[in-house]
Amino acid sequence: MDTIVAISTPYGTGGIAVVRLSGPDAFDIADRVWKGRSLSAASSHTACLGMITADDSGSPLDQCVATVFRAPASYTGEDTVEFSVHGSKWIQRQVVDRLVSSGARPAEPGEFTRRAFLNGRMDLAQAEGVADLIAASSRAAHRLAMSQVTGGFSARIDKLRERLIDLASLLELELDFSEEDVEFADRVRLRSITEETISMIDRLAATYASGRAFKEGVPVAIAGRPNAGKSTLLNALLGEDKAIVSDIPGTTRDVIDDTKEIGDILFRFYDTAGLRDTDDEVERIGVDRAHEVIGRAAIVLWLIDSSEKENEIVSQIEWIKGRINAQINSQSEIYNEAAHLIVFNKTDLVSGHDSHCLEALYSEAVERIKAVCPEVEVLRISAKEGNNISTLEKRLVAHAKTGHDPEAELIITNARHYEELRSGSAAMHRVLDALDAGLSADLISQDVRAALHHLGTVTGAVTTDNLLSAIFTRFCIGK
Amino acid sequence: MDTIVAISTPYGTGGIAVVRLSGPDAFDIADRVWKGRSLSAASSHTACLGMITADDSGSPLDQCVATVFRAPASYTGEDTVEFSVHGSKWIQRQVVDRLVSSGARPAEPGEFTRRAFLNGRMDLAQAEGVADLIAASSRAAHRLAMSQVTGGFSARIDKLRERLIDLASLLELELDFSEEDVEFADRVRLRSITEETISMIDRLAATYASGRAFKEGVPVAIAGRPNAGKSTLLNALLGEDKAIVSDIPGTTRDVIDDTKEIGDILFRFYDTAGLRDTDDEVERIGVDRAHEVIGRAAIVLWLIDSSEKENEIVSQIEWIKGRINAQINSQSEIYNEAAHLIVFNKTDLVSGHDSHCLEALYSEAVERIKAVCPEVEVLRISAKEGNNISTLEKRLVAHAKTGHDPEAELIITNARHYEELRSGSAAMHRVLDALDAGLSADLISQDVRAALHHLGTVTGAVTTDNLLSAIFTRFCIGK
Repeated sequence: MDTIVAISTPYGTGGIAVVRLSGPDAFDIADRVWKGRSLSAASSHTACLGMITADDSGSPLDQCVATVFRAPASYTGEDTVEFSVHGSKWIQRQVVDRLVSSGARPAEPGEFTRRAFLNGRMDLAQAEGVADLIAASSRAAHRLAMSQVTGGFSARIDKLRERLIDLASLLELELDFSEEDVEFADRVRLRSITEETISMIDRLAATYASGRAFKEGVPVAIAGRPNAGKSTLLNALLGEDKAIVSDIPGTTRDVIDDTKEIGDILFRFYDTAGLRDTDDEVERIGVDRAHEVIGRAAIVLWLIDSSEKENEIVSQIEWIKGRINAQINSQSEIYNEAAHLIVFNKTDLVSGHDSHCLEALYSEAVERIKAVCPEVEVLRISAKEGNNISTLEKRLVAHAKTGHDPEAELIITNARHYEELRSGSAAMHRVLDALDAGLSADLISQDVRAALHHLGTVTGAVTTDNLLSAIFTRFCIGK
Repeated sequence: MDTIVAISTPYGTGGIAVVRLSGPDAFDIADRVWKGRSLSAASSHTACLGMITADDSGSPLDQCVATVFRAPASYTGEDTVEFSVHGSKWIQRQVVDRLVSSGARPAEPGEFTRRAFLNGRMDLAQAEGVADLIAASSRAAHRLAMSQVTGGFSARIDKLRERLIDLASLLELELDFSEEDVEFADRVRLRSITEETISMIDRLAATYASGRAFKEGVPVAIAGRPNAGKSTLLNALLGEDKAIVSDIPGTTRDVIDDTKEIGDILFRFYDTAGLRDTDDEVERIGVDRAHEVIGRAAIVLWLIDSSEKENEIVSQIEWIKGRINAQINSQSEIYNEAAHLIVFNKTDLVSGHDSHCLEALYSEAVERIKAVCPEVEVLRISAKEGNNISTLEKRLVAHAKTGHDPEAELIITNARHYEELRSGSAAMHRVLDALDAGLSADLISQDVRAALHHLGTVTGAVTTDNLLSAIFTRFCIGK
């Protein structure tokens, strides 16, 4: 096994930088470049002040602190030295070069974590959690990654695998006693265990929709007719003048998006093109794209311009009702329970009698749309004046947490895990079919083994070099 | 004294990042956010694995390694904890915020190093060396910064100050014995000590020219008539197509520069406008600027187009001789010993009889120019074909090291140190004048004290808050 070295801190100039050296020869190599107390002789978890030499003549390269971690009590599970050097790019490069010319090899992306996995310091889901942890940019995403790193997720998968192993044993039992006609009694039990397992796997897989949302940002589409104030609302939500979107030619056909953390949750807002039915081919493309975004959104904000004439508002409500209905009927796989909020914007432009009249329209909107979407909500805001934006934000957070509170529940965030769970579920459905068809125990256990394989791949109990490479090349170098 | 906290590694996303906490309450504050072995109880220089909590309820923020350094055995000389956290920007910010809300204060730029100075862990010149070390981008600059950090420079200054203190004591002695007419014997000795000290200070101050050059890049001007191949030579030296300089309109009036490390030394090459005497006002401005650059250069490469006709080459040689002569007579303060190299370029275009003829011209060039500049050298290159570029590079390195080898000698690199040395030297010149004028010992000792003050300011033996602020605000945060 090679001894590997890399800069583990972000690349750039800073006060200090950490160069990590890990592998069977870490202490020998470190001592070759080290003036100070012998690192080979140092106890684990101790920090020594000393000098890295520039060459074998011993001329100084950098005065630094070396921290020694002895196998297996290190991140990688190998002997490790972490040099805390002065943070110039030049020194960082020189120290890595010096260690390479003294016997180490430059680490590949994720290689330290890969070794941590191979040495049993963490399972595969935990290792993937490390990458998520480093990429996390909101409290919710961070919490999910933490639960993966600390092993909560793996424990759940292991429990599922135990059930499958039990199932396999029962099938073995049936094989052993097949002469004695115990088959039917056991099959009832097998069926109930299988169904239960499928439901557990599916429940976990179903959390991926919100898991992905928490990780990448809960997708929120801002939809509505042209001039309903969508761009103004985007700016109000982002708390910055992201773009005077409507002033830039061509943007009406693009989808503008940006993220913002609200109440610990990362939201990804999409400002869509103004929606209207059109015969113009080019405009239709823009509108289709807006519909696509709305179809993928977890939350849709339907904006209405409150300053419009009454009959125009009623027609917009009717039009939105139609769109929501179409949306519900063409359920996308992941966000099949998108929340819909009707947002009456520009309330600052309405006063006196009109304001009274609008009150009635709000109620009417709720009634009409409840017919197709019972959970619909109506809000009144002024994006321009910032009125009621904080209420809207609170509703967004509440909707994002509906079903899956990132703090309370185990949620999967990784596409690979999702796929493996779905494959596992499919295999278990085949088990169910085989049980119903009265197939023999040895045929059934093939599918149980397939399900075990898929779940095992999640935590790395079952693994291949290709899989590991695919996972770890997405890491940064130095981790 | 506050306890301060900052991210000490470069800002960005990476495998890990280091958050440094230093001050009298470092251990208490650290333990407030720490789940794991008590850091207050940990021995100095030990690393502990544990968890930073997100809030007082103990929910996890990051699993990390905390390394404990007990006062005075830390960088700052104070109790210090370094948290090696996962390298997401989000986590880095959260950990700092968490420590701030638990009693620490965000550190100001350079505040850790400022405390190291105030706690006697390093003197001021060493502290300034730390900033230089972080900024160093070549081996030579790095070596100079290292010698400053490790205290070689400070030792020299301290030696100078000891001499001045001796001088002050001798003056005291003269005051004590003034009744007994011992004055004249002592004054001879005082004079010789003063002269010796001035010469030591001046020698050190004189190294600033090359010190600054090694730090910022040794300035090399590429000069010559239009079309001598200056831009091609710049590209050949940089080893890249920095710019097809002559193809971009307007560049002929600008000075293009870039740096390159050659043989451990950083060079800063200036591609100047084509030089020729002109009556055109606008062109004159460009030419004046080129002359200014040449005036500030440590090395001037005078390019001649070898493919020109013989009489044109002779005229160019004569013109260069004039320019070098003008240069020498208008000595700039810092590079009063600039090296001049005559570079016959485009040798690839010369062959046969012309080649023979050129041989004679080389000798003639040397002879003519030696009349004004005895150390002149002549080289033949083809910038386009890359012929002899490595020889040219070797000559550049040799010239850069002439007088001051960055490996062998003590060299000052800091403008502040240079100014203090010059002020110290001026004060000692006043001492000399006072001795010659036969002034009384108490008047003379005022100037000795002034000199002591200036030297003391270099190492921080004498210091003010304003001076410290001026120095440390130039540091990055986290160092």
